[in-house]
Amino acid sequence: MSVNLQGNTISITDQNTHHLANQMLDTQALPMILQQIHQDVIEEYGKGNVADYIPALAKVNPHQFGMAIRTVDEQEFSIGAADTAFSIQSISKLFTLMLALDIVGDDLWKRVGREPSGMRFNSLVLLDSEGGIPRNPFINAGAMVVTDIIAARSAAPARRIEEFIASLSGNDANRIDQLVAAGEQATGYRNIAIANLLKGMGNLEAEVEQTLDCYFKQCAMTMSCRDLARAIECLANRGRSHFKSSFHGEKMDKRINSLMLTCGLYDAVGNFAYNVGLPAKSGVGGGIVAICPGQYSVAVWAPELDHYGNSVLGQLALEKLTFYTHTSIF
Amino acid sequence: MSVNLQGNTISITDQNTHHLANQMLDTQALPMILQQIHQDVIEEYGKGNVADYIPALAKVNPHQFGMAIRTVDEQEFSIGAADTAFSIQSISKLFTLMLALDIVGDDLWKRVGREPSGMRFNSLVLLDSEGGIPRNPFINAGAMVVTDIIAARSAAPARRIEEFIASLSGNDANRIDQLVAAGEQATGYRNIAIANLLKGMGNLEAEVEQTLDCYFKQCAMTMSCRDLARAIECLANRGRSHFKSSFHGEKMDKRINSLMLTCGLYDAVGNFAYNVGLPAKSGVGGGIVAICPGQYSVAVWAPELDHYGNSVLGQLALEKLTFYTHTSIF
Amino acid sequence: MSVNLQGNTISITDQNTHHLANQMLDTQALPMILQQIHQDVIEEYGKGNVADYIPALAKVNPHQFGMAIRTVDEQEFSIGAADTAFSIQSISKLFTLMLALDIVGDDLWKRVGREPSGMRFNSLVLLDSEGGIPRNPFINAGAMVVTDIIAARSAAPARRIEEFIASLSGNDANRIDQLVAAGEQATGYRNIAIANLLKGMGNLEAEVEQTLDCYFKQCAMTMSCRDLARAIECLANRGRSHFKSSFHGEKMDKRINSLMLTCGLYDAVGNFAYNVGLPAKSGVGGGIVAICPGQYSVAVWAPELDHYGNSVLGQLALEKLTFYTHTSIF
Amino acid sequence: MSVNLQGNTISITDQNTHHLANQMLDTQALPMILQQIHQDVIEEYGKGNVADYIPALAKVNPHQFGMAIRTVDEQEFSIGAADTAFSIQSISKLFTLMLALDIVGDDLWKRVGREPSGMRFNSLVLLDSEGGIPRNPFINAGAMVVTDIIAARSAAPARRIEEFIASLSGNDANRIDQLVAAGEQATGYRNIAIANLLKGMGNLEAEVEQTLDCYFKQCAMTMSCRDLARAIECLANRGRSHFKSSFHGEKMDKRINSLMLTCGLYDAVGNFAYNVGLPAKSGVGGGIVAICPGQYSVAVWAPELDHYGNSVLGQLALEKLTFYTHTSIF
Repeated sequence: MSVNLQGNTISITDQNTHHLANQMLDTQALPMILQQIHQDVIEEYGKGNVADYIPALAKVNPHQFGMAIRTVDEQEFSIGAADTAFSIQSISKLFTLMLALDIVGDDLWKRVGREPSGMRFNSLVLLDSEGGIPRNPFINAGAMVVTDIIAARSAAPARRIEEFIASLSGNDANRIDQLVAAGEQATGYRNIAIANLLKGMGNLEAEVEQTLDCYFKQCAMTMSCRDLARAIECLANRGRSHFKSSFHGEKMDKRINSLMLTCGLYDAVGNFAYNVGLPAKSGVGGGIVAICPGQYSVAVWAPELDHYGNSVLGQLALEKLTFYTHTSIF
Repeated sequence: MSVNLQGNTISITDQNTHHLANQMLDTQALPMILQQIHQDVIEEYGKGNVADYIPALAKVNPHQFGMAIRTVDEQEFSIGAADTAFSIQSISKLFTLMLALDIVGDDLWKRVGREPSGMRFNSLVLLDSEGGIPRNPFINAGAMVVTDIIAARSAAPARRIEEFIASLSGNDANRIDQLVAAGEQATGYRNIAIANLLKGMGNLEAEVEQTLDCYFKQCAMTMSCRDLARAIECLANRGRSHFKSSFHGEKMDKRINSLMLTCGLYDAVGNFAYNVGLPAKSGVGGGIVAICPGQYSVAVWAPELDHYGNSVLGQLALEKLTFYTHTSIF
Repeated sequence: MSVNLQGNTISITDQNTHHLANQMLDTQALPMILQQIHQDVIEEYGKGNVADYIPALAKVNPHQFGMAIRTVDEQEFSIGAADTAFSIQSISKLFTLMLALDIVGDDLWKRVGREPSGMRFNSLVLLDSEGGIPRNPFINAGAMVVTDIIAARSAAPARRIEEFIASLSGNDANRIDQLVAAGEQATGYRNIAIANLLKGMGNLEAEVEQTLDCYFKQCAMTMSCRDLARAIECLANRGRSHFKSSFHGEKMDKRINSLMLTCGLYDAVGNFAYNVGLPAKSGVGGGIVAICPGQYSVAVWAPELDHYGNSVLGQLALEKLTFYTHTSIF
Repeated sequence: MSVNLQGNTISITDQNTHHLANQMLDTQALPMILQQIHQDVIEEYGKGNVADYIPALAKVNPHQFGMAIRTVDEQEFSIGAADTAFSIQSISKLFTLMLALDIVGDDLWKRVGREPSGMRFNSLVLLDSEGGIPRNPFINAGAMVVTDIIAARSAAPARRIEEFIASLSGNDANRIDQLVAAGEQATGYRNIAIANLLKGMGNLEAEVEQTLDCYFKQCAMTMSCRDLARAIECLANRGRSHFKSSFHGEKMDKRINSLMLTCGLYDAVGNFAYNVGLPAKSGVGGGIVAICPGQYSVAVWAPELDHYGNSVLGQLALEKLTFYTHTSIF
């Protein structure tokens, strides 16, 4: 393979790709690589569908693409609509997990498992058969228990989550979109079912309504690719954030990264691990965040989803990124 | 944390561990680190149980431990019973997967999935509900389909697998233990059930008896830690093996490594990914093999198993290895 | 066997039992038989546990027993606390089914199945995998859909159900116990989960809260054995009720009776069919109603439950009734 | 409704049907009724498909219909191909259950349950999750355990079953069709899977091959409607058979009849209970046997099956029979 980037040439053969993988990121080539990725992926517009279960999401222009990379030494690279805010949806599960671990530490694992589920993200089956302990914090049931930990220990839990995320991204404009939150609530029957089942099985501490309110609101956070790449910096940088120096994630980064790799993309975990090779978390707003441990964080956004609910262009862009930069962890 | 290694001191604080992780392996420190690991883990003798479903496995001396590391530049390091041969059991699934991919390429994925199962390795539930397509090649049903690909295309399939593995390890003494194979066959009712179900659902090509014979025999291969570390070298070394130069695994190493990480330790995948952070495959003979992509392969053996069927000391030894050497991929 | 009833003797040998079964009820012997049953069953006090998930149910005196039989020619026989009102709980599912069938006819079966579930009465598993169509109207999910049919078509649905039942029993004192209803609501997380799941899958017409309110209230109806025997008379009497002549159940009696036999006692259906041999429906308040088609209706009450949630003495009393009177349908 | 039977008229209105149900069989009207049924059902030819998984079954002429009734006072009535022998298939499960109960009595229930399964007859799911105890003797797994009881206690078990059935029907020509048995064996992968799973879970006593051989052979018994109506006479006649006076089924008839009603037609149990209202057992050869307790036994045969595997015309004929004769048990 030979990639022509505006006059320059990066020659990548299948073979030396393999010899060169797991490399340090070559930041000099990155601007050209991002341009190439952009050029490649926008040809795939129209191959997915925008999430339509909430009006506020359904009306998003499908043909948008943004990407932002941030290295642990604070260099930032971006392309396309990297500063356009969108609904982060399930990516929020990552932030509530950080916050809950910060609050209760490893006691969290008494109430949520750490293994892949092999089921749809909103399945009730395993929950029912496994005593109310969700398989992992990235399926809805698990994320609800995580949210409940925060809800039961905060006066204004949704506000607390909102501020935690905004402090990680260093952007005070990162807020809950109340219209989206209301839409989640209005159509979220299955999530309401999950919360009540958890309560009935003794795995919710706060009132069902309180935990659900908080859960629906966190999904409705609005952030850009740049905000997200900054906000998850701590997971690439051994737990430390340049924006929120008070945050100490040293004890959770490895745990969360391994969880993202084994559970972060629902039923497409295996393929993503192979194609991209980075710990990642996706949301039905079309965003995906990923981590190259010790090197960089990356966020990508394109609203069209495949049938698993993952961004079509987002996955492709990340696959090309680790291919061109040889930074798959495998 | 401060580790005293026979007079020398490697000082490792929790904090700099995090800053130093994902490092290149320091081979100079490795002999000391292996001694330290050995010293640490043998204190855990007695915390698991030897597999007892076959007499030939049940009578293995439980208090044994061996470990061998091989770097991509052909350095080898070992400790304990690294040259003692043992029954590789499910580790064989790795080799048959390589061989089948070598034979049919990506057509293999039409008959086996690549996602975690969330179920016990020998469960029939998903198989029944998912049209006879096993979730991945490392659960028994998936491995049986992989074996069937070889069985349906070889005159003497068990012999072919045996020789393939021996050529990868470069040790012609690596052979099937016929006594263990006979024991597998005699008690393997659930595996016989799985094979017949697959056949009934149209996902076995060879005769059931033929595929099963081959399946039971491959599990009964006998190898040492050193043999195993050599035999999986290709997965650490971008598909190339120093012992079998004719083997070209460049197109499969990333796929297999990502599969090992997401599916290689059954129900303990998530915890192992966190604690060790390397793609790995275990067997109920007490062996575990693991890969640090681009750097080294490692095999460890200790017969006592936890209730998931994974070696107690083996897991601990690998956890200590990536901790001391900062080579977790996360 | 020879049963001595206060000086008289009914001699029943195992053999002639068999020759005489499926007989017409001998109403002359019935008073003596009821006395014998009473005497027999009260020796079993203490072998079960009163439902304790609601305070109002938990404080019921466990050592109570009542039984009432009503023949299609309007003879009534009773013993013990046959006129003591108790919480009918799931027996209400029978009445809402009658009412919903009366309202929408066989269209009801587009939304609920008619087959045994093989699962716990409150399981969510099949619901999730079978597109939101509950297996039958006697598991909670099915009863909720039935209630929803009424709720979506009535201005005051709970009141409508209450009055429907009271008119069938001819006793205007049959009312909803608001304390019990409030208790159901307060602890009914799993039922709330079921309702939301149904709504999310498009199988509830009314608002979730409305259907649930109605569902919880109907379970809290308070009736005596005599009331119940009268209220289900129509199912024994080819659809006709002496108390509510306007009710025409001719098209539903056979359907409901066959459903009771195959689905009326949850996971104990098979044993009850054998031991008693009558279509029946139980409730966790300790009541059981049963039908001998064409001959009589019967209600029995004793609060102590077995682990399936069925009245211990109630089942025994019915078993003895069909044994002594040779009226098992098998 | 008004049914014209060759000049005579039986007027049946919906209403008096209901008032007259559960009646004693009017044997005088029966010949006319059978003619009417025959005339009615043959119009439905072509609405199902003949079982095709075995060549010997696939080549059966689909347009055949036979029916035979035998009353407990030894009157016999028949129409159509009532004396044509066909493959009884799963109806054999009834006979092996009788024989096994005759041998070990209620100890049988330690190894097989008595509740509906809610799953396909050949499902492995519940078996796997419920410790190897099949839900009831009429699903394949349950029937295999029943057969195993006979196989483990007989020198020539298939021969023993063959002779037991022939003695019940009084027709020594009732034999195993070895061609069909070989076909079952050759294509019975799922049944082989079930047997091995049972063996692996400790619920088979005999060797797997022995029990399977016996299982496949019993399914291949060949009998006519008349043979079958005679062979199950004991279930209608309180356990006694006019052909095999040595057989004492007094303790099992009620149990088997209730099991047939709750579990005899797999996933169509509920509908059949409503439409026909008799305990029954079907086979994929197109036969169905049914019992009116205390009154008569009936067998019907027509090879075309619905998607549940039950004879289309057979079900319809039985429905008409209980409708015209008012002998539904409900």
